[in-house]
This record gives sequence, structure tokens and C-alpha cells, in this order.
Amino acid sequence: MTILQKKQYEPLTVETAVNLTKELDLFPENSILSCREIGDGNLNYVFHITDSINEKGIIIKQALPYAKVVGESWPLTLKRSTIETNALKKHGEFVPQLVPEVYHSDEDLAITVMEDLSHLTIAREGLIKGQSYPKLSSHIGEYIARTLFSTSDFALHPFEKKRLAVEFSNPELCKITEDLIFTDPFFDHETNDFEPELREDVEAIWKNNALKLEAAKLKLSFITDAEALLHGDLHTGSIFASETETKVIDPEFAFYGPIGFDIGLFIGNLFLHAVSREEAHRAVIFEHIENTWTVFHSVFSELWEQSNLEVYTKVEGYKEYILQKIFSDTLGFAGCELIRRTIGLSHVKDLDGIADKDKRIAAKKQALALGEALILNRNKWNSLTVAITLLGEKTA
Amino acid sequence: MTILQKKQYEPLTVETAVNLTKELDLFPENSILSCREIGDGNLNYVFHITDSINEKGIIIKQALPYAKVVGESWPLTLKRSTIETNALKKHGEFVPQLVPEVYHSDEDLAITVMEDLSHLTIAREGLIKGQSYPKLSSHIGEYIARTLFSTSDFALHPFEKKRLAVEFSNPELCKITEDLIFTDPFFDHETNDFEPELREDVEAIWKNNALKLEAAKLKLSFITDAEALLHGDLHTGSIFASETETKVIDPEFAFYGPIGFDIGLFIGNLFLHAVSREEAHRAVIFEHIENTWTVFHSVFSELWEQSNLEVYTKVEGYKEYILQKIFSDTLGFAGCELIRRTIGLSHVKDLDGIADKDKRIAAKKQALALGEALILNRNKWNSLTVAITLLGEKTA
Repeated sequence: MTILQKKQYEPLTVETAVNLTKELDLFPENSILSCREIGDGNLNYVFHITDSINEKGIIIKQALPYAKVVGESWPLTLKRSTIETNALKKHGEFVPQLVPEVYHSDEDLAITVMEDLSHLTIAREGLIKGQSYPKLSSHIGEYIARTLFSTSDFALHPFEKKRLAVEFSNPELCKITEDLIFTDPFFDHETNDFEPELREDVEAIWKNNALKLEAAKLKLSFITDAEALLHGDLHTGSIFASETETKVIDPEFAFYGPIGFDIGLFIGNLFLHAVSREEAHRAVIFEHIENTWTVFHSVFSELWEQSNLEVYTKVEGYKEYILQKIFSDTLGFAGCELIRRTIGLSHVKDLDGIADKDKRIAAKKQALALGEALILNRNKWNSLTVAITLLGEKTA
Repeated sequence: MTILQKKQYEPLTVETAVNLTKELDLFPENSILSCREIGDGNLNYVFHITDSINEKGIIIKQALPYAKVVGESWPLTLKRSTIETNALKKHGEFVPQLVPEVYHSDEDLAITVMEDLSHLTIAREGLIKGQSYPKLSSHIGEYIARTLFSTSDFALHPFEKKRLAVEFSNPELCKITEDLIFTDPFFDHETNDFEPELREDVEAIWKNNALKLEAAKLKLSFITDAEALLHGDLHTGSIFASETETKVIDPEFAFYGPIGFDIGLFIGNLFLHAVSREEAHRAVIFEHIENTWTVFHSVFSELWEQSNLEVYTKVEGYKEYILQKIFSDTLGFAGCELIRRTIGLSHVKDLDGIADKDKRIAAKKQALALGEALILNRNKWNSLTVAITLLGEKTA
């Protein structure tokens, strides 16, 4: 009882989490509730509460006031819980079928109470196990197009856009991205983490002035281009999926940034997964990569045609200019993601999980080479096929 | 007494303005004060209070809760007074010699109490009278470079930059610019205002798809590129000057936007003034135009070299990329200013004040042609000399 009234932050336990659901009347009277903490404990608690009588469940996610990064704890704003709740709700206005429903939130407790998605699996885990998600790229293409177009200056009154940009100002979590994606991997920084076998490739990156110049431009774009309300961390670990369903979770990095960033991170993670596979099993992932852009392009264009708010959307060539800018950004951001997930602080299981060392190193080298090519050629390439072909050639 | 304690907004009168200065102890005991309201009454009151004994003066500027635009009053946020005060103070940290000192401010009364600059003249007025301001472009080049570099991501910690971006969120005044500079003049909109003799040129603008496409890009840049804390309205009417001194006033449009906007507005207004002059008297203005960019470039480069905050500033080619982007934006924004001051809602006295109708129309046609050329060629031209030469050829 006291939890809601006091509203003083304290980490929940399985007991207080269950008490909270009772206070909130989230389950029927006759429920028999059980609760497990299923988070990784680094950044957040995630309580899964289930009712064995009515076969219903909910999730309570609580932000912890610290993050375990670089081997030690550092303080991290609890405000990210509010950002996450508000981003889920805002994006849910446009794609309710693609995000979990939020039942309740409490800013002081830094909690979000939401839909139980335990019938789905995390896309990264499933892909690694060879699971097939035929709808994944269509759903994500639609998610990106609808959430980003609908929160951009092409769809919102300028007052509302700027109000949201202030509401979603997210300096602390943006800084993590600025450092770990855009800066540290391109310099000999202590946060970097890679096998000795990659040192030669990594040092080549650190010495590649042309590449660093493009990384600098991409970092600046991330920092200054307030185009739309991004998810901000749209990798395959932020997506629950099944054969028919897709749900995007964890938008605690949400802020107003460049539209290509969400697409680039998603496509970058599909590329990371593709290089982790034997060549014979890559085709389905390549199809997802191309389809993500195709669906995004199609839905974004459709929304653009319907827009009556910005008079310039009727000017010939403007849509093409915007989509070209987004495409170029997408390739660049995807390239940064490939590099940082290979040699930076935060790796992906797709690559690190390859047991055979030679194969693992070969896949990582391929990820680095593709990352560089995406960054350097982002203004030249006009389709993702070129990137895919490059990968095919290199593995052939 | 009650004014400060109640803190309830009401428009000041000459009496309450004097009372306020007494409360604030801004003059010595033995002062004999007189007060005049010297504003134009459209947007703000400006009280000039002088002490005849000690020959000191101060200015109290008070925002009014409405603006007279499009022939009628519409409500306008008093928050602009806070924005103005805070921008004067923030910019004053970097160029105290180039902005008025702020003695006091009151958010509830929407007032800024500041340095009396009545020994100077408004640059636009002086230029029209043929006055010479030999320091004008050097001072403004320095003002722009120091205020904008120092509030950018190249000089500030990301937390501080993003805190300021939120503090200076300025949707209402930005919308005025979005409409009156970037949109209405390029379409047949009711706010436009031009002589019948210009109709053919104006209709050519409305039909020029290539031009409108570039205007769309510039508008989007204004809205989304949060690069630095701009003045936001840096025309020659926002500058007090003498032969030796320059002070930039009225930053109520301040917000985080593209660096080229401030430079473009200033240079655009110098171009507007140049075309209003007989050809024989333009050289000094052309020198100011070139010198503004030269000084900006030099001071910005110097600050860049000193910066140790953004590691990418050491990457070869990055400074040149940034300065090229700023230069291209500058030309484009200058072009928009030339067009909107000629056919949009808000004109300049430089052009409208030309008594001879044929000369006035000729000057305005030249302003429009130059505006278009600046917008269309902004990515091709690599110096302002090209624009100046174009003007020379056209008048020859």
C-alpha cells in the first residue's frame, strides 16, 4: 500500500512487485500470483508476474539507479524509465500492434507496468537458433516508418514537435551512444574490446582518416539532426517476435534524432547476424535487410502523400531528397553499428557466440570490412543490394 | 514596491518603470530621473530612463502579450522576454564587449533591465543615412564565431549543450520565422506584400520548383539542425553601432539552430542594403560582406584549434567540412532573407525607403534575382565574391 503513496524510490522485490499489482487491480480477485525477476540486473529489474488461475501475466520493469558498464557501476538517471514509458505510449499511438501496451507507470518508482510478451522470443536469440520470423522486416519497416514519420515535422504542428523534443531530451543515454557507437571504436580507447587477432584490422580503422571523418559527420548528425522521435536502440535484442507477431520494447534511449539511426541500427544488426551465419543460410537475412527498407520506403511515402501539414511535401523532388538523406544515413549508422559491436564495449551474441575461433575471427573481420564500406560509400550506393553483394563476393 | 512582490504581469507605465529602477537601486540617491517609452509598440515596450544629475541611463524592455502582425493582434508568449535575457547573458559570457549588459530581469513582469546604448545608432538607420561603421563586419564576424562556436557541441559538454537546447526551446518565435522567411514568400500566401510591378517576378518564384525545393531543404535545416544557440534575428536593425563600437540586441528569437542562419541573415541584410545604394556607393558594403565571412572563418578556426572537448576536431578535413556546410547554409539563408524582405510580410526600410519608384522596383528585382541565385548556387559557390560579382554584372 505504502509504495504508491510514499512514491519514494526503492528497488522492488518479488514481494513488493506482487503487492503493487494488487494495489493496481491488474488481476482478478481470485488470482494466484507468482513472480520472477527475469532481467539481466545490469540496468533494470524486470518482474514477470503470472496468474496461474486465469493464465494472465504482466511485466513490471524498474530502472536501477546505476549501470554496470566498463566493469564497474556508474550512476544513471532514473528519468529513463519515464522516457521509456512515454515513448512506448507515443509510438503506441501509431503502431499499437507493434509495441507492448502500458498499463501503468510511476515516475518516482521508475517503473513501467506493461503487457506480458512471454509467448514471444527475443529476435536475436531466435535468429541465432535459426528460427524464422517471416514477418520481422515487414513489421519493423512499418514500425519505423509510422513512428518516425508521425513524430516528424511532416506530421506534427511545430509546437507539438518542439514540445515532444523537450519532453524526450535524453542527454545521459544519448551520451552512451555518442561514446560507444560514434567515438570510442574509432580511437584507441580503453572501452574497446576485441581479440588480438583483430588488432591489425582495428589499428587500420584508427589510422583511416577518411573513415574517421565520415564517423565524425555521422556523430554530428546523431547529435544535431532533431528529425523524429527515435526508438534510439533498435537492435534485434529490443524486439520480441514470433512467426506472426512483432513487438518493439526498451525505448529508453528515445530522443529526437535522425530518422536513419533506427533503420541503420536494425539493418546493422541483421548484417551482424548474416555474417555470423554460414553462407548457405544467409539469404533469408538478406531478404529481411532489403525488405526492411522496401517496406519503410513504401509506408513512409504513403504517409507523405497523405500529409497536409507541411506545404512543401507537395513540391516535386522533396520526398526523394528526404528519402535519399534517410537512406544515406541508414547505411552510415549501420556501418557504425557493425564496427562497434565487433570491437567496442558492447558485443553481440551472434558473433561472440561462434564457438570455432577461426570462423569467429573471419566473421568479425567481415563485419569490420562491411562496416567501413557502408560508412564510406553511403552517399554513393543507391540500394542495399550493393552491400549484400559485397558481402557475397568477400565470402566467395 | 508591489510590482516586484506581486510579480503579476502588467504593462509598465513611465511611472511604474521609474519606480522599478528605484526599487532596484540602479541609480544613485541624488538622481533626477526622467523616462520615455521609445519602442515601436508592436511587440514590446522600451523605457529609456535617464538621470540628468549623473548622466547615466538604463533601458527597461518589457514584452507585450500580443504582436501586431498581419494587421491584427495575436497573442504571443511572454516567455520570449526570458529567452532574450538568458541569451544576452549566455552570449555575453563569450563577447561581453558586443552585447548590452543585463542589470536585472523579471520573468513574471517579462522585463529585461539593461545597459543604455543611446550613444549608438541602429546600424540599419545609420547605413541608410550613409554612415560608415568601419568595425561593423569585424565585430559581427567575431560575435557570430564566438557565440556560436562556444554554444556548439564542439565547445560544450553534451549535457550542458542539451540543457541549453531545452532552456532555449522557442517554438512560437521559431514559427514566425518558419512561416515568414521559409514558407509564405514561396507560395501565394495572404501575408505577402509587394508592388504590382513585381508580380511577374514573384509569380516566377512561386512556379520555380527547383527554388522551392531548395527553400524546403533550408526550412528543414532551420527546424532540425540544433547546432548552436543562435541570435535568431540578426539583421541590421538588431545591431547598435558607432564608428568604434558594436552591440547586438534583441535576441528574443534565440534557439538552437543552424550556425549559418545568423551569418546568412546578417549578410542578407547587407546585400539588401547594397542593392538599395547607387552602384558607386556599394563597395564599402561589399567589403563588409566579405569581411564578415573572413573574420567569422578566422575566429571560428582559432576556437576550433583550441578545442579539446571533441576528439574528432583533430581529424583532418573535419573543420573544412563544417565550415563548408556553414558557408553553404549562409548563402541559402541569406537568399531567403533577400526574398522575404522584398515580397513577404516584413520589409526593410533600405528598399521601401527608395523614393524613386523605378529605382525602388529595380532594386527589389535585383534583390529577388540575387536571393534566388544564392539559394540555387549555395553548394556551388565557394566565395561571396561570386555573389557580389553577379550583382555587379547585373547592375552594369
